[in-house]
Amino acid sequence: MIDRLIVHATLLTMTDEKGGLLPDGAVAIEGNRILAVGTTQELMERYSARVVHDVAGKAVMPGLVDAHIHTSMALYRGVAQDTHHWLQKGVGPYFSEINEAEAVAGSMLNIVEGLKAGTTTFSDFDNPMPLIAENYRTTGARGRLTATVNQLPPGLHRLKVNEMYPLDESTGRQKLEETLQMLEEWHGKADGRITVMLGPQGPDMVTESLLLEIKSLARTYKTRIHMHVAQGDREINQMERRYGQRTIPWLDSIGYLDEQLVAVHLTEATDEEAALMAKKGAAMIHCPGSIGIIDGMVPPVMAFLEAGGIAGLGSDNAPGNNCNNMFNEMKAAAVFNKIKAKDPTVMPAEKVLRMATIEGARAIGLADEIGSLEPGKKADLIVINTREPGLAPVITAPVSNLVPNLVYAARGHEVEMVIIDGQLVMENRQLLTVDESQVVARAQHLAEQLAARVANRSSN
Amino acid sequence: MIDRLIVHATLLTMTDEKGGLLPDGAVAIEGNRILAVGTTQELMERYSARVVHDVAGKAVMPGLVDAHIHTSMALYRGVAQDTHHWLQKGVGPYFSEINEAEAVAGSMLNIVEGLKAGTTTFSDFDNPMPLIAENYRTTGARGRLTATVNQLPPGLHRLKVNEMYPLDESTGRQKLEETLQMLEEWHGKADGRITVMLGPQGPDMVTESLLLEIKSLARTYKTRIHMHVAQGDREINQMERRYGQRTIPWLDSIGYLDEQLVAVHLTEATDEEAALMAKKGAAMIHCPGSIGIIDGMVPPVMAFLEAGGIAGLGSDNAPGNNCNNMFNEMKAAAVFNKIKAKDPTVMPAEKVLRMATIEGARAIGLADEIGSLEPGKKADLIVINTREPGLAPVITAPVSNLVPNLVYAARGHEVEMVIIDGQLVMENRQLLTVDESQVVARAQHLAEQLAARVANRSSN
Repeated sequence: MIDRLIVHATLLTMTDEKGGLLPDGAVAIEGNRILAVGTTQELMERYSARVVHDVAGKAVMPGLVDAHIHTSMALYRGVAQDTHHWLQKGVGPYFSEINEAEAVAGSMLNIVEGLKAGTTTFSDFDNPMPLIAENYRTTGARGRLTATVNQLPPGLHRLKVNEMYPLDESTGRQKLEETLQMLEEWHGKADGRITVMLGPQGPDMVTESLLLEIKSLARTYKTRIHMHVAQGDREINQMERRYGQRTIPWLDSIGYLDEQLVAVHLTEATDEEAALMAKKGAAMIHCPGSIGIIDGMVPPVMAFLEAGGIAGLGSDNAPGNNCNNMFNEMKAAAVFNKIKAKDPTVMPAEKVLRMATIEGARAIGLADEIGSLEPGKKADLIVINTREPGLAPVITAPVSNLVPNLVYAARGHEVEMVIIDGQLVMENRQLLTVDESQVVARAQHLAEQLAARVANRSSN
Repeated sequence: MIDRLIVHATLLTMTDEKGGLLPDGAVAIEGNRILAVGTTQELMERYSARVVHDVAGKAVMPGLVDAHIHTSMALYRGVAQDTHHWLQKGVGPYFSEINEAEAVAGSMLNIVEGLKAGTTTFSDFDNPMPLIAENYRTTGARGRLTATVNQLPPGLHRLKVNEMYPLDESTGRQKLEETLQMLEEWHGKADGRITVMLGPQGPDMVTESLLLEIKSLARTYKTRIHMHVAQGDREINQMERRYGQRTIPWLDSIGYLDEQLVAVHLTEATDEEAALMAKKGAAMIHCPGSIGIIDGMVPPVMAFLEAGGIAGLGSDNAPGNNCNNMFNEMKAAAVFNKIKAKDPTVMPAEKVLRMATIEGARAIGLADEIGSLEPGKKADLIVINTREPGLAPVITAPVSNLVPNLVYAARGHEVEMVIIDGQLVMENRQLLTVDESQVVARAQHLAEQLAARVANRSSN
């Protein structure tokens, strides 16, 4: 008697380039792992299960991987759109003003939003990370957690463009301590559902020596380095002032471009720099929604992929994107890149679906555990109602429209059931691990307090 | 005693450039019209109503206007993505093969999809239009209906690029008859909820004399001409062969660019041609989703708007887009144009929200009736749950995040209630006029038959 059997699914296993479509498929789950994947007939003959989910008319696929998100920023969703000054004038006052309780409540809101749209793994870059980690324990979501490390002096509210920013040793030391605490307390915890990466905020915000110390730590703890790279012209300018080189060649010069690096954005990278990163083995996280809205730009992910790189997708942050939903990110990645290339064939649906699942998992170093439906992997999967009017009809021949419609038509609310680490986290769109309405009410309450303080400060 | 009072709403009346935000607002409805708009306190003192909707914590705004949609194409959603040959090889076989029952069932699926995402007015360009009109009668949606008129000979399955297409008088005559029948039978019917425009498919697909006859008819019936314009390089090439001019200068030369013209796409128009159209008073319908996916292009809507033009948004068709959802279209319009301009300030959220409501209504000639919440207008409005995790929190000061979040974060399923022409069409996400699951099941059934015929034909 096994724990759980899902039957009569239109399976997308993500085990091949087309999505691994298996009609009338089944998945057997024992504990927190996938025991078998096959046809319904095969698995029903082989197993009996304590719980059987008959999902006829529905698609089942691996849970989505949000490979870069800042959940602590959710409380100021939508405060800074349509501006040239997103960071400094838009988001800055909230970023400076937010307290720990507000950051943690926002994080919970963002996790709930993501879960309800089929995200099962969140590669979350934040502070205060030890407190945010508790949200992952509570919700049952898979957390790949990165505590922010920088050496920006406390009280520095504005980074000046035309001079080198000051970097402060003791700040860096204190923030690295938080990361070490995270590694000790959380790495591999909750049956391995929660793991930790190391997070220099950007190569311009820490010294070379701290970057190298972090690299050594990543080796010790067998984890990766999650860092914003070439994320803006301010950063490139800073690197040129500090080291006389642009970001990516400089990172190459200090031996930073390898499989340990999970590089986010590359907004200001040239195609050649992106290709260099790919060839050296570093992964790229593409966040099309936030960069499109904040900067009106499309980072060089096509050049990165053409050079053989592994790329995932990230929803980044609510004040920038303004949503944290991987269906949105898949569509944005596919269409923004078509528009950039003036070519409807680039970034086909099958490719972006892989980036939101197995390739995202590879990018953040979790592909042995998640990202596809295969025996032995962790049981992270989602059930999608393809009979929602906007996803219907499902056609299988002469071509299958399932993958194109998941990428170009689905919006996230079609996800009906979420299983993470073998545990039922959402059923019939009801979250089972937390009270959604309480999460939203608390976020609303604290956001009003935060906004009132920001309003008060800006009127002074 | 009035019919209906909506109270405690966060109102977006769309009566000013910022959206006409009114906290704790109310709308009074009598019959099919808005009687009054004001604060909850004002309207509760003034009226008592047979039905009172308390929508505290929710936003209320005019129903969305889908200013260009082909609902008859919904059954082949998602069959032709990521290709250079969308029309000829992708969609063509389905377009040739579909029968009337299938087209009508697809239309119903698309209308249901749109209603559930807050679209209340559909500017629908299709055939067989008299049958599709019945879907609007049944669902309670507002239909602005256009029967396709072209002179392409029957059996012509493929338009050749390098020679003039044949145009056939009797085909044009027969299709114009259908339009005349539509005008007589449907224009102004269902209490004015259903109206009719005239629809030459494109300036390359009808003769000059038929175009001019249609213009005269539009004057007689006091309606507008809904036409694809500069929709592809094939069309421009055809116009140059036929008349020695590109589309828009030629239309100008025959006096076609005026307030009567609702011009769709402008994909291949230059900025100067778009500006010319705007200055002459023709309206533009921008369909960013479908043109982005099908062509990897962003039409010159910015140049059109800068020249003072009135533009609406359209979702076009399911095999191209692949969804028919104005929240998707608003986000696409805002972000695609930022990317095209490499400037995050272009196409701000407030602007695209207007294009999906009042300006879309102006573009299709219905602004006296719909598009904003004002006394005397038809009661077409939607209630949006802003406590969905992806729309929370709502902040009102120091800046309001409601409009940016409706554009950049909402996905359509947050729409809880739809009222059209004073009638409750959806409540608690349940459609009250048609059985959603039957609509989806019928669409699925007929799509399988259609796809089987296409598969059979392509394998022969």
